[in-house]
Amino acid sequence: MISVNGGVCAASGFMAASAAAGIRKKGREDMALLFSKEPCKVAGTFTSNVVKAAPVQWDKKIVASGNDVHAVVVNSGIANACTGKEGLDACLQLARSVAYQFGNEISEDSVLVASTGVIGMQLPVEKMQDAISEMVLKLSDGEENATLASKAIMTTDTVNKEFAVEFELSGKKVHLGGMTKGSGMIHPRMCTMLCFLTTDVAISKELLQKALSADITDTYNMISVDGDTSTNDTCVILSNGTAGNEEITEENEDFKTFCEALHQVNSTLATRMAADGEGASHLFTAKVVGAKSKEEARTLARAVVSSTLTKAAIYGKDANWGRILCAMGYSGAEFDPEKVDLYFVNDIGKIALYKQGVPLDFDEDFALEILSYQEVTALIEMNEGSETATAWGCDLTHEYVDINAEYRT
Amino acid sequence: MISVNGGVCAASGFMAASAAAGIRKKGREDMALLFSKEPCKVAGTFTSNVVKAAPVQWDKKIVASGNDVHAVVVNSGIANACTGKEGLDACLQLARSVAYQFGNEISEDSVLVASTGVIGMQLPVEKMQDAISEMVLKLSDGEENATLASKAIMTTDTVNKEFAVEFELSGKKVHLGGMTKGSGMIHPRMCTMLCFLTTDVAISKELLQKALSADITDTYNMISVDGDTSTNDTCVILSNGTAGNEEITEENEDFKTFCEALHQVNSTLATRMAADGEGASHLFTAKVVGAKSKEEARTLARAVVSSTLTKAAIYGKDANWGRILCAMGYSGAEFDPEKVDLYFVNDIGKIALYKQGVPLDFDEDFALEILSYQEVTALIEMNEGSETATAWGCDLTHEYVDINAEYRT
Repeated sequence: MISVNGGVCAASGFMAASAAAGIRKKGREDMALLFSKEPCKVAGTFTSNVVKAAPVQWDKKIVASGNDVHAVVVNSGIANACTGKEGLDACLQLARSVAYQFGNEISEDSVLVASTGVIGMQLPVEKMQDAISEMVLKLSDGEENATLASKAIMTTDTVNKEFAVEFELSGKKVHLGGMTKGSGMIHPRMCTMLCFLTTDVAISKELLQKALSADITDTYNMISVDGDTSTNDTCVILSNGTAGNEEITEENEDFKTFCEALHQVNSTLATRMAADGEGASHLFTAKVVGAKSKEEARTLARAVVSSTLTKAAIYGKDANWGRILCAMGYSGAEFDPEKVDLYFVNDIGKIALYKQGVPLDFDEDFALEILSYQEVTALIEMNEGSETATAWGCDLTHEYVDINAEYRT
Repeated sequence: MISVNGGVCAASGFMAASAAAGIRKKGREDMALLFSKEPCKVAGTFTSNVVKAAPVQWDKKIVASGNDVHAVVVNSGIANACTGKEGLDACLQLARSVAYQFGNEISEDSVLVASTGVIGMQLPVEKMQDAISEMVLKLSDGEENATLASKAIMTTDTVNKEFAVEFELSGKKVHLGGMTKGSGMIHPRMCTMLCFLTTDVAISKELLQKALSADITDTYNMISVDGDTSTNDTCVILSNGTAGNEEITEENEDFKTFCEALHQVNSTLATRMAADGEGASHLFTAKVVGAKSKEEARTLARAVVSSTLTKAAIYGKDANWGRILCAMGYSGAEFDPEKVDLYFVNDIGKIALYKQGVPLDFDEDFALEILSYQEVTALIEMNEGSETATAWGCDLTHEYVDINAEYRT
């Protein structure tokens, strides 16, 4: 398996485009369109937030219907959440516009819609329809367009996030790639902010959904920027089956390989989202090993990267490791604190902080050196079993407060 | 019922003292002692964190034993959490010192111990024993000493928090007062950081515990500063029964009056803790009305004051109300977002933001005026029932990040 350029256009038959609809600052591209002429099987996971944005409601219906999908139209700037009937109508109008631009050769219910931005504002539908007609003309399968699309969906993200892999199935070269956005309101419960995956692998809809649902548990659902689960979380994967591999219809070796590729793409994109968390100066990882159960390992790892106090300490390069034990303690997991070993580790080195109930004397200068590096992992040995889990987060910085005290205005 | 001065010394028979043991900065008082010559019935609630500090383990045992209590010795600066056997030994030595200073007329297991501060450091027991002998000499029932004690237990608190009321039971004047500390690591699940209540009301131990356990659900368990549930949360109430009222042994009118007094003291102290949350510039209250169930109302109110993004918006005086709906949505409560009405309200005025699924046009200047005031309430009408709940929190500020990036060092 090798990583390749091209993001959402790495898989054959997928095209992308972007445009500035004027939802955000003048000239800033704020819309993206993904298109496959071949009909795509689709799988998706969506926010568990009770308050579901209009596009989430729209997409869930399409994914559940079993219809094939041809396109995804995305905007940044406005989330189209808490917008009532007008918000749902907007989804219909946007999907209809895309279908219309293709001479109605595709139906409106083969067009997914996604939005990210401020909650509680209505979309400027007419401007967006103009942008759609512009994007349909600009569609291309070149990697430049994939990159432009991944930039158009950014909000407070500081870097775009796209990744793709090439691998082989039944002797055929196949591809899987994707793009994500997400920097704040990141604490996914079902999936993450916005994530669009494309593949040319031929695979049944059932197995596509099964692979996706399983993989998000250990990727997007294991990152946290601020503990706020968005109203718009959406992760969809489109497979147009153009790679020519033998269609995957059972959980065979090919399915296993596909799942591995999916995990590589998802975990790469998830890590990049955490590292680019709003205002972040550190990628902060919690790796739990030796846990009694997988679920407990996940719970513990998530609690550590979600702890406000721990995040502030990481920002301050302060080895205030007691906050990590504290977060584990209130996570809901049952464990014996007297069995835990705790370390900080990264490319600079590894330092032991706490061992089996006893705080260790440690070299504060070395700890500072480790914590001054941009990536740091809290390695937590539970000594109670053999299950592991990893969660990714970032530190809590002044810039986070700046961004979110002024985001809307 | 009237409020009176005297805090923990408002109830007859209670004395207090404070001292500088040298745990914290030189000269800064960091220990407090509470004492009643008359034996006290005691009730307590403690952190639900799996990682329980040594003093929490010590106190839980005493409260469960049914023993009478005479004293509470408290320190700030070091939490005595994650300190293994040495930490538990420290509790024993401190309690033993207090008993010894009273010529062993009281037993070591009538002395509660409480600590707050950095996790993972050992207490300087000898220095603290010196401070104990100093405090025993300084004990007094004067309100000055009560205030000094409430100051000595502060960590990052900017103001001390004490409150007391006087009321009548069976024709006797009785008192109930208390002091709390807590500014960070505040997201109580069983109780709050440190809270010491005293009363001269004669009441059975069972009813004392029942009244306390019931009341914290709507007071300390409804505040949040940063979502981190401490390892040291402790709330205890001592009643020495010296007021001469007929002992409360059943849930009669006197018990009801006692519970009302307890609620007034607890809700006052809880509100003050939230307002003095680390770095806070706003007291932010969420009041949920018209909910289907009490539990759902509590869940919703807590989620709103705990939302990082909402807290940052309040700091920025930004009426970004969509974040409130979003927090309600991921709280775990089931509700229909299309039925919700949302307002900001305080002494400046009231402004409607969202009504039954539709975002409202509102006067941004007036919203800014309301949010510029130091206290603001999000009033949330669910329109699904008649239950209500209130939660208290604060905004997320640059000062919070400063305090917690540098707390330990």
